[in-house]
Amino acid sequence: MAKKTKSKSTKSVKSVNSIETNEKMSKIISFAKRRGFVFPSSEIYGGFSSIYDYGPYGVELLNNIKKFWWKHMIQLRDNIIGLDSAIFMHPKIWEASGHVAGFSDPLAECKKCHFRFRVDTLLEELGFSADEKMSLGQIEKLFRKNIDKIKCSKCGSNEFTEIKKFNLLVQSNLGNFSSDFEKEPVYLRGETCQGIYVNYKNVLDSTRVKIPFGIAQIGKAFRNEITARQFIFRTREFEQMEMQYFVNPKSEMEEYEKLKEYRWQYYLDLGIKAKNLKWYKHKNLVFYAKEAYDIEYNFPFGFKELEGIHARGDYDLKQHSKFSGKDLSYTDATTSEKYIPHVIESSAGVGRTFLALMTEAYTEEKIDNDIRVVLKLLPELAPIKIAVFPLLKNKPELVKKASEIFNELRKLYMCEFDDNGNIGKRYRRQDEIGTPYCVTVDFDTLEKNEVTVRDRDTMKQEKIKIENLIDYFKLRI
Amino acid sequence: MAKKTKSKSTKSVKSVNSIETNEKMSKIISFAKRRGFVFPSSEIYGGFSSIYDYGPYGVELLNNIKKFWWKHMIQLRDNIIGLDSAIFMHPKIWEASGHVAGFSDPLAECKKCHFRFRVDTLLEELGFSADEKMSLGQIEKLFRKNIDKIKCSKCGSNEFTEIKKFNLLVQSNLGNFSSDFEKEPVYLRGETCQGIYVNYKNVLDSTRVKIPFGIAQIGKAFRNEITARQFIFRTREFEQMEMQYFVNPKSEMEEYEKLKEYRWQYYLDLGIKAKNLKWYKHKNLVFYAKEAYDIEYNFPFGFKELEGIHARGDYDLKQHSKFSGKDLSYTDATTSEKYIPHVIESSAGVGRTFLALMTEAYTEEKIDNDIRVVLKLLPELAPIKIAVFPLLKNKPELVKKASEIFNELRKLYMCEFDDNGNIGKRYRRQDEIGTPYCVTVDFDTLEKNEVTVRDRDTMKQEKIKIENLIDYFKLRI
Repeated sequence: MAKKTKSKSTKSVKSVNSIETNEKMSKIISFAKRRGFVFPSSEIYGGFSSIYDYGPYGVELLNNIKKFWWKHMIQLRDNIIGLDSAIFMHPKIWEASGHVAGFSDPLAECKKCHFRFRVDTLLEELGFSADEKMSLGQIEKLFRKNIDKIKCSKCGSNEFTEIKKFNLLVQSNLGNFSSDFEKEPVYLRGETCQGIYVNYKNVLDSTRVKIPFGIAQIGKAFRNEITARQFIFRTREFEQMEMQYFVNPKSEMEEYEKLKEYRWQYYLDLGIKAKNLKWYKHKNLVFYAKEAYDIEYNFPFGFKELEGIHARGDYDLKQHSKFSGKDLSYTDATTSEKYIPHVIESSAGVGRTFLALMTEAYTEEKIDNDIRVVLKLLPELAPIKIAVFPLLKNKPELVKKASEIFNELRKLYMCEFDDNGNIGKRYRRQDEIGTPYCVTVDFDTLEKNEVTVRDRDTMKQEKIKIENLIDYFKLRI
Repeated sequence: MAKKTKSKSTKSVKSVNSIETNEKMSKIISFAKRRGFVFPSSEIYGGFSSIYDYGPYGVELLNNIKKFWWKHMIQLRDNIIGLDSAIFMHPKIWEASGHVAGFSDPLAECKKCHFRFRVDTLLEELGFSADEKMSLGQIEKLFRKNIDKIKCSKCGSNEFTEIKKFNLLVQSNLGNFSSDFEKEPVYLRGETCQGIYVNYKNVLDSTRVKIPFGIAQIGKAFRNEITARQFIFRTREFEQMEMQYFVNPKSEMEEYEKLKEYRWQYYLDLGIKAKNLKWYKHKNLVFYAKEAYDIEYNFPFGFKELEGIHARGDYDLKQHSKFSGKDLSYTDATTSEKYIPHVIESSAGVGRTFLALMTEAYTEEKIDNDIRVVLKLLPELAPIKIAVFPLLKNKPELVKKASEIFNELRKLYMCEFDDNGNIGKRYRRQDEIGTPYCVTVDFDTLEKNEVTVRDRDTMKQEKIKIENLIDYFKLRI
């Protein structure tokens, strides 16, 4: 993971980025908190497990990721349109989708301290492969057979309850005013795509889309993960960016290949290096799936899923047609061919993209005898695009001029004004949060109407006329 | 509500917009569905009460509303920064905020058909004022005294259970792996601002903000409204745009007045006419509040709350300090003054803003013998900014040229390509969804490199050189 710096600065720069993976993870977590990117939830109350809040710079990066996705998946694409379906839906939808019956993990409880844990994960950690296809009985057998090697990770006891299936759908009492809401649970969605399937007919009826077409949406989903971990990689509340593409069954695999290609290129466009991406082909497909690949990213804890791209056949629309009693077939206006569209999906995580970008962008460079931390994000993704500095805080004419420039620039870009400390320190603060450009107003500015623009990556400085500043940034951001 | 049109078109235009209020509401609801703005949730499953999904054009308007707010509340403001706290938080936060004990509505149930309803609303509809300050006992008394006038709205019976308090916080089993999750409920947030208060210290520690400063966020909140209604005005799942401003106690009321002024101007900037806005001053303040005003909008069902602007004193931070045991006071670096900041808040609804804008923008104009439906949204808010048409579908050179222009424009704006039907019909389709500009490529384009740009509101057409097109739109959108 050594990262070569491309700095053209005259200063001596040496990459010190061959940080150990776990060290890198801890660095990112503490950096994210210290610089206002990610805070653990409810921290003043001792924290709330597996939930994270995005701070002032984090929310800007998060929003930029979502805008980037929206632009690439909707604005720049023919025949893909957006949707924002609610988190709550009719509970029957989760029966149709198979989540009520089948979306569960094997759970056991320590009889002594009542700690609950996922049995399959524990068995895997002990070197046994407990794959998704094993029945509860088989898992129980494997568990009991090796019980002498298993201890409760909290209290050390090895007496456990029977293993039971724990459903990952989060239940709630929304709209239920009786006291027995467990009898008729209303679910928080476990994935955003179901909101797309059930609106497929509304979209057909209210727009002029023709197959092949896609419906894309960004939104939160919730899963009652028994053990969530790895920072924002797996959380109980998370945000998805999903696109469901409805195709003629005959062209499913052809469209699937095109989508795979498009999504791979997307990550390169996002600034991720090809060597940190790889394809993972699913071996154990669910019965209806035609093909399933993940794009994996080289996280500090290894290559893990960033996005799933799956050819799902006609399963989704068929199930909803069956459970709702509504005809969800499509009739081609020119050929009169009638069929249930097949679905290919692209399903990416906002939080995982955020973590991948932090991993990719977080850089430590040795400059002379100092370490420079710099977040090498694309300008389009950077939380702050431009920082404006008056050279000296106590020169009102510099502060005034800098404020004027700042006020013009922030009409177009997220900007920050900083008059605190020496210029070197101010540069470092902006480097850390990934600000691509810093503009300094000095005495030359007052005389020649020129400012100094400093580039985050090269650290090179240029003199730019104030009247050319907006065009300068328009070309670069 | 007659709306004068400013069209400078030569066609004869007569406003027919003095639609009856309830008629207007039904028109908006059916228009919103027909043109892909708002769909009732889970429609193919018979619907899911009080939840709505935003369709292809709706989600664009929704996103534009959120971007507009973010720009005006963060990007263009000194000392206000963003946040994205999660929906789930430590349950104790809702005890500190007072929601667990006090956030409830009086509920009764029909003994015959088990229909549940809000007693205070019912009494109000019957002409009795059942205000927020009445105790449960007082409401029960008023209810029983008038029982002969009260019938179950479902079955007509007048035998009801005792009135009990029903808490509006939605409960869930997130992170709870036992079966008795009602004993330790985890709440979906009932308002987004608590996520701001509990991150106040994290923000202070990770940024360089100084009092007065604000934390702003957009996000979903959930309330178990017993009777939700009026389309997207009151829903169980809804989205808030909230800004909490932390101030020195001495300047609370001065800052409060400034915020009121800023927020009023914001709605004018959003394109809402002043005559459709008014201030409502709260009379029954909660004990800690200094002052509370709402900005009301003239919805089809009357003037109702669009935003609340409240001076909340030190209640919020004091409560969280008490319940978390953490010191949340602020020390002024220059004066060394130490205090618990007071909070003034601006709390607006995304859905309510959406409905206000639809109400404001939805216009019917009589043109010759036809009715033109046009959504007069600001270009900045319009779902589609520019539509591009080849004059004729069967002339490949026109289609090719139009596609080229479309592909250039959509790099910058949400655009739509339409080659279907006569130009007049295509204009009407774009008018309905509020597209401010239509670009038509005709034979002049091929000869003179000129396109026809047609303005939504004036219906005037102009010839513009292709090379000037981007500058033309940059000035206008």
